[in-house]
Amino acid sequence: MPGQPAAAAAFDFAGWTAHQLGRVEMALSSWVTADSPADLGHPMRYAVLDGGKRLRPLLVLAAAETGQPADRAASDDAATRAACAVELIHAYSLVHDDMPCMDNDVLRRGKPTVHVQFGEAQALLAGDALQALAFELLVPGDDALPAALSAHLCRQLALAAGVHGMAGGQAIDLASVGLKLTQAELERMHRLKTGALLQASVMMGAACAEVGAEQLCHLSDYGRHLGLAFQVVDDVLDVVADTQTLGKTAGKDAESDKPTFVSLLGLQGAQSYASALIDQAHAALAASQLPNTAALHALAELVGGRTH
Amino acid sequence: MPGQPAAAAAFDFAGWTAHQLGRVEMALSSWVTADSPADLGHPMRYAVLDGGKRLRPLLVLAAAETGQPADRAASDDAATRAACAVELIHAYSLVHDDMPCMDNDVLRRGKPTVHVQFGEAQALLAGDALQALAFELLVPGDDALPAALSAHLCRQLALAAGVHGMAGGQAIDLASVGLKLTQAELERMHRLKTGALLQASVMMGAACAEVGAEQLCHLSDYGRHLGLAFQVVDDVLDVVADTQTLGKTAGKDAESDKPTFVSLLGLQGAQSYASALIDQAHAALAASQLPNTAALHALAELVGGRTH
Repeated sequence: MPGQPAAAAAFDFAGWTAHQLGRVEMALSSWVTADSPADLGHPMRYAVLDGGKRLRPLLVLAAAETGQPADRAASDDAATRAACAVELIHAYSLVHDDMPCMDNDVLRRGKPTVHVQFGEAQALLAGDALQALAFELLVPGDDALPAALSAHLCRQLALAAGVHGMAGGQAIDLASVGLKLTQAELERMHRLKTGALLQASVMMGAACAEVGAEQLCHLSDYGRHLGLAFQVVDDVLDVVADTQTLGKTAGKDAESDKPTFVSLLGLQGAQSYASALIDQAHAALAASQLPNTAALHALAELVGGRTH
Repeated sequence: MPGQPAAAAAFDFAGWTAHQLGRVEMALSSWVTADSPADLGHPMRYAVLDGGKRLRPLLVLAAAETGQPADRAASDDAATRAACAVELIHAYSLVHDDMPCMDNDVLRRGKPTVHVQFGEAQALLAGDALQALAFELLVPGDDALPAALSAHLCRQLALAAGVHGMAGGQAIDLASVGLKLTQAELERMHRLKTGALLQASVMMGAACAEVGAEQLCHLSDYGRHLGLAFQVVDDVLDVVADTQTLGKTAGKDAESDKPTFVSLLGLQGAQSYASALIDQAHAALAASQLPNTAALHALAELVGGRTH
């Protein structure tokens, strides 16, 4: 595969992932607490814990391994916080996206969606509170993170989540139902809706580890290609996977007349496009000449080949 | 009135307010732009511009006048950003709060609510994007604010907006319909639901102007008393004002069987309690021995005596 160093073959990705997932789950569980006014922490924990693939946190942590920070322990702490922050933003977006006024989905990760389980009002508030908590995590009260890093991470996350990122992409998505989009229009939607946060995950991890400006550009390319590949694969899976494998209702896109890469390029065309994007992600990593990119390489492979 | 310096009598509050409102409206209009994916900026602008009393921004700007910052221009810029950030959080909370799954209100500031005007999905997304934008404003990309101040403001805002602040208070509110609350329980709800953001407004303004730690404690007291007074007056107004004066549907609380200070203390009792809280706010200002508290004094008077 182009650009992948030979050393990556020896990388124990399963072991790495298990270790990092343990780190993320423990941190999320400690920061999203049940102890809360009117039990609002319960739908928050339900939305966040037990079941996510944690792709975004893994991207943060993998990107943080490519740098040479002056203080590794401080960098690790920052990366854990950034990993959890991007996951909280992702989790809140799913809660709101599943609501009746949006996608009206009743099943998520094989469980009832938050509004089905807790009611719409609690779902709305839990999502709102998760977004606030994401920013809170990035600025610990005890000065554990350098203020410049906290501020930088807050800005990256706000941009990725906001009107010119995820929320704007969802607005395009809503406005596009039943429309015939060009490939460029479809890509713009996905670059905002899911790509921005995936790319921000990479960039935030790199910032935690003090990766240099020039190398950041290559990581940005990696994140952009990977982010788009993720969505193309998602569209493929919506067609080929059944509901049980997917953990959410399959065939929703076609049913709701949403434009997809499959409807635009055909099934095989979409699969080829995903492969090409993953190759580009690998090439960007190679161009960065950064050390310790094995986890980022493996995550790109995972995105390209995932079954759910 | 206790604690109010004689100089305050000469303070041109109307002139001050007009000047600060102009500053806030111009900044909000420039930062909440119409140019956006799928026109999501339109419901965002509709929610934010033209019609708010801007109490929270005025508190930020008034508190920022009490400090002696090393760089006044930089402090003013920070305060403008903080003022707009708290208003965006307030605005998003109103958008979500008005939705059918929450208070189901169709009228706000004399206009159709956002979901009535733009649909529920756009309202949900516009609110989400406004929250993200609030944090974005606090971290300008050009290093215009010191990173330590940006980070501090982000943390204050996240805490005030989140599960142990505004969102948690709204969860208590929802869970309290039809229940008989004690005064302590009612106060806890309001300290979170509206008090936290009002108090944060004062503290964020003070942080922008480098107010010292001991004096911050007094300003914190001021903000707490004022925040609670605001809600007591709100309950009084819900009973005595008509819909046209209020700009929103009057009598909603009694109709929806929500506990209020009026139902707990009676109309006159609630009015007396509001006056006592405003007196405490003035006393906290006097205890701070800060200069230039005339605007904060006048805002407390405004909260105590407002008709809408």
